[in-house]
Amino acid sequence: MKTQKQINIRAYKAEGFAGRYQELVRSTVIPYQYEILNDRAGTEKSHVVKNFENAAKALNGDDIGDGFYGMVFQDSDAAKWLEAVAFSLSDYPDKELEERADELISKIRAAQDKDGYINTYYTIKDRDKRWTNLLEGHEMYCSGHLFEAGAAYYEATGKRELLDVCLKNAEHIYNRFVRDGKEGYPGHPEIELALMKLYRVSGDEHCLELAKHFVDVRGVDTEFYKKEKALRDWTVWGNNAEDNAYQQSAAPVRRQREATGHAVRAVYLYTAMADLAAETDDKELLDACDRLWDNITQKKMYVTGGIGATVHGEAFSVENDLPSDTAYSETCAAIGLMFFASRMLEAKPDARYADVMEQAFYNTVLAGMALDGKSFFYVNPLECVPGISGKAPTHRHDLTQRPGWYACACCPPNAARTIMSLGKYAYGESSDTAFCHLYAAGEVSFENGVKLRCQTEYPFDMKVRYTVLSGGRLALRLPSWSRATRLSKNGSDAEYEEKNGYAYMSVYEGDVIELSLDEQARLVYAAERIPELSGKACVCRGPLVYCFEGVDNGGDVLSLRLKRDLTAKPCEAEGLNGITALSVNALRAKSRNDLYSFVAPELSKTDAKAIPYFCWANRGETQMRIWVPAVL
Amino acid sequence: MKTQKQINIRAYKAEGFAGRYQELVRSTVIPYQYEILNDRAGTEKSHVVKNFENAAKALNGDDIGDGFYGMVFQDSDAAKWLEAVAFSLSDYPDKELEERADELISKIRAAQDKDGYINTYYTIKDRDKRWTNLLEGHEMYCSGHLFEAGAAYYEATGKRELLDVCLKNAEHIYNRFVRDGKEGYPGHPEIELALMKLYRVSGDEHCLELAKHFVDVRGVDTEFYKKEKALRDWTVWGNNAEDNAYQQSAAPVRRQREATGHAVRAVYLYTAMADLAAETDDKELLDACDRLWDNITQKKMYVTGGIGATVHGEAFSVENDLPSDTAYSETCAAIGLMFFASRMLEAKPDARYADVMEQAFYNTVLAGMALDGKSFFYVNPLECVPGISGKAPTHRHDLTQRPGWYACACCPPNAARTIMSLGKYAYGESSDTAFCHLYAAGEVSFENGVKLRCQTEYPFDMKVRYTVLSGGRLALRLPSWSRATRLSKNGSDAEYEEKNGYAYMSVYEGDVIELSLDEQARLVYAAERIPELSGKACVCRGPLVYCFEGVDNGGDVLSLRLKRDLTAKPCEAEGLNGITALSVNALRAKSRNDLYSFVAPELSKTDAKAIPYFCWANRGETQMRIWVPAVL
Repeated sequence: MKTQKQINIRAYKAEGFAGRYQELVRSTVIPYQYEILNDRAGTEKSHVVKNFENAAKALNGDDIGDGFYGMVFQDSDAAKWLEAVAFSLSDYPDKELEERADELISKIRAAQDKDGYINTYYTIKDRDKRWTNLLEGHEMYCSGHLFEAGAAYYEATGKRELLDVCLKNAEHIYNRFVRDGKEGYPGHPEIELALMKLYRVSGDEHCLELAKHFVDVRGVDTEFYKKEKALRDWTVWGNNAEDNAYQQSAAPVRRQREATGHAVRAVYLYTAMADLAAETDDKELLDACDRLWDNITQKKMYVTGGIGATVHGEAFSVENDLPSDTAYSETCAAIGLMFFASRMLEAKPDARYADVMEQAFYNTVLAGMALDGKSFFYVNPLECVPGISGKAPTHRHDLTQRPGWYACACCPPNAARTIMSLGKYAYGESSDTAFCHLYAAGEVSFENGVKLRCQTEYPFDMKVRYTVLSGGRLALRLPSWSRATRLSKNGSDAEYEEKNGYAYMSVYEGDVIELSLDEQARLVYAAERIPELSGKACVCRGPLVYCFEGVDNGGDVLSLRLKRDLTAKPCEAEGLNGITALSVNALRAKSRNDLYSFVAPELSKTDAKAIPYFCWANRGETQMRIWVPAVL
Repeated sequence: MKTQKQINIRAYKAEGFAGRYQELVRSTVIPYQYEILNDRAGTEKSHVVKNFENAAKALNGDDIGDGFYGMVFQDSDAAKWLEAVAFSLSDYPDKELEERADELISKIRAAQDKDGYINTYYTIKDRDKRWTNLLEGHEMYCSGHLFEAGAAYYEATGKRELLDVCLKNAEHIYNRFVRDGKEGYPGHPEIELALMKLYRVSGDEHCLELAKHFVDVRGVDTEFYKKEKALRDWTVWGNNAEDNAYQQSAAPVRRQREATGHAVRAVYLYTAMADLAAETDDKELLDACDRLWDNITQKKMYVTGGIGATVHGEAFSVENDLPSDTAYSETCAAIGLMFFASRMLEAKPDARYADVMEQAFYNTVLAGMALDGKSFFYVNPLECVPGISGKAPTHRHDLTQRPGWYACACCPPNAARTIMSLGKYAYGESSDTAFCHLYAAGEVSFENGVKLRCQTEYPFDMKVRYTVLSGGRLALRLPSWSRATRLSKNGSDAEYEEKNGYAYMSVYEGDVIELSLDEQARLVYAAERIPELSGKACVCRGPLVYCFEGVDNGGDVLSLRLKRDLTAKPCEAEGLNGITALSVNALRAKSRNDLYSFVAPELSKTDAKAIPYFCWANRGETQMRIWVPAVL
């Protein structure tokens, strides 16, 4: 059984930083993405809504008009938008938005085949191709996103229409793979974690059984994709069917030890594994999750919480290979790491999971979206040098500016739904304890009766104040990055029991709990085994990784050096909506023009300005660097 | 007219360091490569000799046996081997070797068509494909290497058989492109520089005219490769016919400003341009060469003299992009840079050209070959971390160990012929002056009557002693890296005129000129505009770049730091044939296991051992690093 679980989406109403981000998504991102899904935004063509309309026509034998357009997983963009809408509606009823969502849901239902199958790519283009290419076909990936949307929309609005479409589709898939015993497992894991959600809102045991089935059979027959390929005469991208490490299928999941292959697929799989392990008390599976967690967070994760270092296959690289400038670090992968962290927390509340969840959220996930909510990064490098980034053959994927949309548009709606559901990651509950994993301002009501009001300007201000509106047992995370943590209750030092980085205490109505975290900026160093980071340090404060941008530093951040005796004062940075920047005591090496010289560059003192990484690239093309050489 | 020119190959007999390397090539590399060309070495299949035999059969209408095998430019391996043999025979007559070479030359002649065409790929596989794919076809590349071999073999032995084959082939090409006015220019420049050599040994004006033709028409019709592609129904690698920057054809060569595209092709082209510019007093062309030279050496060259930073197309990257660990830095490209430098020196003797020529030779070119002469690097990274190098998706090309041979075997024989002809790069002459560009031990006789004996253990010992055997005017290069140069004549300070980094003086029989160069190791720093090298330094001594290998440093070079107050003492390194290593006052950061930590790594003093870069990877798989973070 789960030690604690994510709260219901309706249980939290965001204020403060999270509230403002959710308002941005609500007021800007959701409408903007709706225009995109309907091809009215003037950006990269989406055609998502038309695909559903045309699929319905295809099912009715009508003329399909302009047919299908987009990636094989184009449907999932609609699902992620609906999921974000669901989360938005749970807090802020909006009749017009709900009508739009209901209209889209009707179009989706109309595109579902009688047997429960739903996927516009296959329905429009070639129904004979159904289920012939699990490796690349993304049918279950799209179903998974639909299930997540269906579960969220039901949880938020109580409406069953989309949920019923999902359950019918899940039953179709259950019949194929469980009842009829057809071989195979999804090339892009996603449906497994989604089936767990569908199971929880519907109670349908087939959903749990199907999720467990896909987790259990994965990597047992390592020849499956090879055999499948031999039977089909088509391909989407020509993926290598024998690269089992890339497919997370080189061994049964319970025996896997290293996070390999496509990073998003990997963490989506691990999320389902952790969820299932806790749900079914499967210790062997949980041990595998722990091994994979440690492998990622100790060998394959950027300081920004980004994962998947290489553009080649959007994948994990080998251990200790974490290049800054050619990083892939896909937004969706950081989101997936949050999912994985959240499910690990459900299995066992340990602050190390929440620390990483926070690291991924405040740095890479938020960096995926511009401050105005209108442009997005798919790829999140830790260093940007105009002239090289986006231009050198090895850096083409590392753009210097966020585009408005992508042909492969997985990340923007993924960021939107994640921000809108932040409450589920910030707060958790067991039958007798309310868990505060992240410090998210707003009101939260737990099913166990505890009710809190959290006031904070975190992640900029390190004071977090909880007013207890209804008492009970509380578990507050104590982050590992804080070297000066103080917890007070009604003005005096609080008494609490500390366990795995959480402070447990009983609270009563009217109590005021104040958490003071380390306000000092700190230098972070990497292990010597990371070749890229030898001799470098980065500036962090609270959960935020800071970066230096050219626009704040005379156009040149490459000649900056950090001093080990860091002093950093809060200051303002122009054009960033009043976000807290830092003025850092740095050194600047005098630039020379000669490519090589035996004259050591003169170093002179300078105040360098650092801004939170998630705000980078909001003020035009400019240099950016997180890791800076640190001198004595 | 040329200010000075390369010496005749017979004019120099190597001793010392160059002598030992030539002896290694003579005793090991040439016989080993001969076995390979004949498929008797048990390494990567070559089939080169069989290709010529089978092409002759094809011309005679006989059964072609096992046909053609290898790359479209496979023939060039035979040519480069013959060129190395020619240079070897010029110093060390070897009847058996000469018979083998003559036998191969006869086979080559037998593979020449009546019209002068020669290329086994097309002759065996499909004669209709001749000249249909200049972009990728490498016909003129192979001809070029044959011309270089023909010129060298004639220069070394006085035998005309191969020279005549070459002249007949050159005439065939002249007729096609000049007399008959067929459009086009070589996808892989090489024939241009080779035609200049053929012109010089034969006096055939058509060779000069043809070289000039190809240089002049290049990049004038930027649609040529596109039009050619539209007319053909085959491809070798599917190269992009419209990527003119990659093809060095985006503009007429006289207007080019940036070194782009395939690095070997680029420097081979620039070599011909510089040669032609000096030969024909073409100032506009020489200015273009100078711009391209500056662009390479100030924006696109590794400290090892390696060029072509990216594996994508074996090409120059954008300016200032010089990654150490994913470097391509092909051995052949460094060789080509030596060629370019040597021709620039012929146009105007300036030590900056010779400095780079030396940098490329002693570091990247020599690194291309193992100390035992039996294995070779095609790619020369500046950092190697087992577990990442050769394994990460972005590092697959950066091997940790030299293979015995390559399917694409351009580099090993290229290194061999370059080492064997070192005298041509080390010494030059004008009608009245003997030029000493490099410090190469041995005896050298100039056509202008000067005769010298050079004694030195350079590049390890920085004293170079010239005994004048026959007097005249001397020009000795004063390298820019030497901060303490002393030139003496018969024990007293020498009087000389210094011009562009050369010391000019008159000498008489019996004079002893001693050049003392800076013996101190020095730290070299890169310009701040190179993102990869911020805060780093490397150790150099004389012309040698040093590196740190794990095998000498407790297995870990990643935690080493350099101090700006470098002290470095000569010492021995095991297993490197007595080569001078350096014991360097370094610091070592204490390794931690945590991926990220806010505890600054403790630094403690250590003596680190550095070895010349060219010797790396001779003692098993181990870490290697040139650029090390430098702390205060």
